[in-house]
Amino acid sequence: MKTIEKYLQINEKKIVLIVIDGLGGLPYNEKTELESAETPNLNRLAKISSLGLTIPVDYGITPGSGPAHLALFGYDPEQYEIGRGILEALGIGLEITKDDLCIRANFATIKNGIIIDRRAGRITTEENQRLCALLSSKIKSVSDIEVIIKPGKEHRFVIVLRGKGLNAQVSESDPQKDNLPPKKIQPLTSEAQKTADVLNIFIKQASEILENEWPANYFLLRGYAQHPDLPLISKRYRLKPAAIATYPMYKGIAKLLGMEVLDTQENWEDEIITLQKRYHDFDFFYVHFKETDMKGEDGDFLGKVKLIEKFDALLPEILKLNFDVLCITADHSTPAVLKSHSWHPNPFLLYSPYVLGDGYEKFSERNCAKGSLGIFPQTKVMQLLLAHSLKLKKFGA
Amino acid sequence: MKTIEKYLQINEKKIVLIVIDGLGGLPYNEKTELESAETPNLNRLAKISSLGLTIPVDYGITPGSGPAHLALFGYDPEQYEIGRGILEALGIGLEITKDDLCIRANFATIKNGIIIDRRAGRITTEENQRLCALLSSKIKSVSDIEVIIKPGKEHRFVIVLRGKGLNAQVSESDPQKDNLPPKKIQPLTSEAQKTADVLNIFIKQASEILENEWPANYFLLRGYAQHPDLPLISKRYRLKPAAIATYPMYKGIAKLLGMEVLDTQENWEDEIITLQKRYHDFDFFYVHFKETDMKGEDGDFLGKVKLIEKFDALLPEILKLNFDVLCITADHSTPAVLKSHSWHPNPFLLYSPYVLGDGYEKFSERNCAKGSLGIFPQTKVMQLLLAHSLKLKKFGA
Repeated sequence: MKTIEKYLQINEKKIVLIVIDGLGGLPYNEKTELESAETPNLNRLAKISSLGLTIPVDYGITPGSGPAHLALFGYDPEQYEIGRGILEALGIGLEITKDDLCIRANFATIKNGIIIDRRAGRITTEENQRLCALLSSKIKSVSDIEVIIKPGKEHRFVIVLRGKGLNAQVSESDPQKDNLPPKKIQPLTSEAQKTADVLNIFIKQASEILENEWPANYFLLRGYAQHPDLPLISKRYRLKPAAIATYPMYKGIAKLLGMEVLDTQENWEDEIITLQKRYHDFDFFYVHFKETDMKGEDGDFLGKVKLIEKFDALLPEILKLNFDVLCITADHSTPAVLKSHSWHPNPFLLYSPYVLGDGYEKFSERNCAKGSLGIFPQTKVMQLLLAHSLKLKKFGA
Repeated sequence: MKTIEKYLQINEKKIVLIVIDGLGGLPYNEKTELESAETPNLNRLAKISSLGLTIPVDYGITPGSGPAHLALFGYDPEQYEIGRGILEALGIGLEITKDDLCIRANFATIKNGIIIDRRAGRITTEENQRLCALLSSKIKSVSDIEVIIKPGKEHRFVIVLRGKGLNAQVSESDPQKDNLPPKKIQPLTSEAQKTADVLNIFIKQASEILENEWPANYFLLRGYAQHPDLPLISKRYRLKPAAIATYPMYKGIAKLLGMEVLDTQENWEDEIITLQKRYHDFDFFYVHFKETDMKGEDGDFLGKVKLIEKFDALLPEILKLNFDVLCITADHSTPAVLKSHSWHPNPFLLYSPYVLGDGYEKFSERNCAKGSLGIFPQTKVMQLLLAHSLKLKKFGA
């Protein structure tokens, strides 16, 4: 990864990076979600801003939220990978250390040694919480390794092993299909023998505790991750960064990168109130609005349109704060017609006193494609934000 | 070369990549060849497609057909080089193995040990065929090396040496100018000694056979190439690829990359009939239309315009097939005003249900420059075709 550290200079200017998750779309009746939305405030802003499109990973590559956010913050997502277990653990409020191994687990149903339901009938989150509390009360450690168990949603929970000598190179216990026995955990390298031993003992103890429960009388392990040890934003960019997000994964990424995750209620209005309240305490704000992505994933074109309009209505509250640099973009596109993330580049809007200003009347994918910033790698976004806040020095004489 | 293998997923969707050789041009009386052509069908398609421009090798670099095609198929042409001898040998129907050394040869006229015409007065192809047959009948091998001799056009022919221990690092015999003696073949590395010995013996034997011919009483060697051992398209992209082309070099490239080269007659209409007939047998079709490039090379602006109009008239026959992804582009530009290949990027049109659709009324270089795909490396084309046919999985969670 190229460093821009040598160019950095500190000033008081403030940057806000607004991520409207899955914003970019595709046409339905000729117009995309963003084109279909009535967005008078965004449009006024777009006219005096510079527009572009950003490529999250590479041409044609559809990113998950993790890689897409890493790229947005300037980290090459093909160089840095964050295990999903880490993101989930961080998201539910666990502080992950470099001695930890995070494991994704599912409650499951076992009968005569055979997994008959890998999701235990998708038990309720409340039942999950009860079972995790039960396991936590009975198992605190295995040999010298601390064991932390935290419920997620429905049948999903997270196990964190904490101690010296842990290694993620162990096999999964999930047979991936119902009506097979669970697999024994095997070390995949000699360094992982201890981790495999700890896990096999843990599974034996925990399954004895669950044995009279139903349907969640067993559990499967299906993903191991250790701390990715990413360079922190404060160090890489000499920023004092804060994150305003409501969903676990995004808070998790922000924490990994050393952002302070601000308390906020789970709605867009309150996220913006939080931004207003904490405006003076940081010089970089990452503000994440999640639900547009979910409407895209649901194929709810009109629902996504309405949420974009909702954002537009809230935009004046953000503009009032007079950030020195304001960027509105997305992590990845989620076209309702695809009902999934996609490879299409992200609409990108950059406002500061030092932009060319493209004069387009509407914030849209097609205008962004013609924008003065061009189509560029998402990993370059932070450099543009720093430059427009005059935080980068001249290179050479 | 970056691999996208890890992203691949298999489905039934079909891709057609149409290469109108040398399509891009430059203005004559303000309009390029493509802009001057009446192309109602292309224009209707362009309006609902995404447009862009592709850079074959690098800014300002004019590619030959080999590198330009390699780039188009996703192979970095500065990493992978295919010797022209290999392409010609494959093009005339020779199956080249990894034990082969391909050599380009020219019939020449020698007098008193001096080459007085390096092209033997450009003898007819028929005379060439007769002489190659004569040489073939008299020389089958030199020591343990099999010798294969095949005529090309006019004075050009191909020699393939087949056997163990061959090496391309030998000097050429062509003095590059008339009125000089031919050069003795020298090994350029110690591993090439055997090859040099075989070639010097072969030249001696063959020139004795030709000694009473006129004007083609000698020949010069001017290019050695071994099998480039390129990763196959079937493996790199998990596609079942077919090529429809009428010229040797393009068939040769397709074969090297593991495409099945389909039998077709030497006209555009029949190439499209072949596409229709074999539609069900493959999921990736490379269709090559050659003559536009030749008109460009000839400086025949109007001739090129007319061929573009001919393609436009044939386009509905291709559209009827309802490919999931349809791409119309070129390998390199051949502006009639330059009478040669050029460095200008290629007009690029991509149609699938998952494109933004740029709304431009005409398929032209200038509209492509404003297109939503931007100006991008030609080596990324295959990634876009795979993405738009939903053959690439999401990266990360």
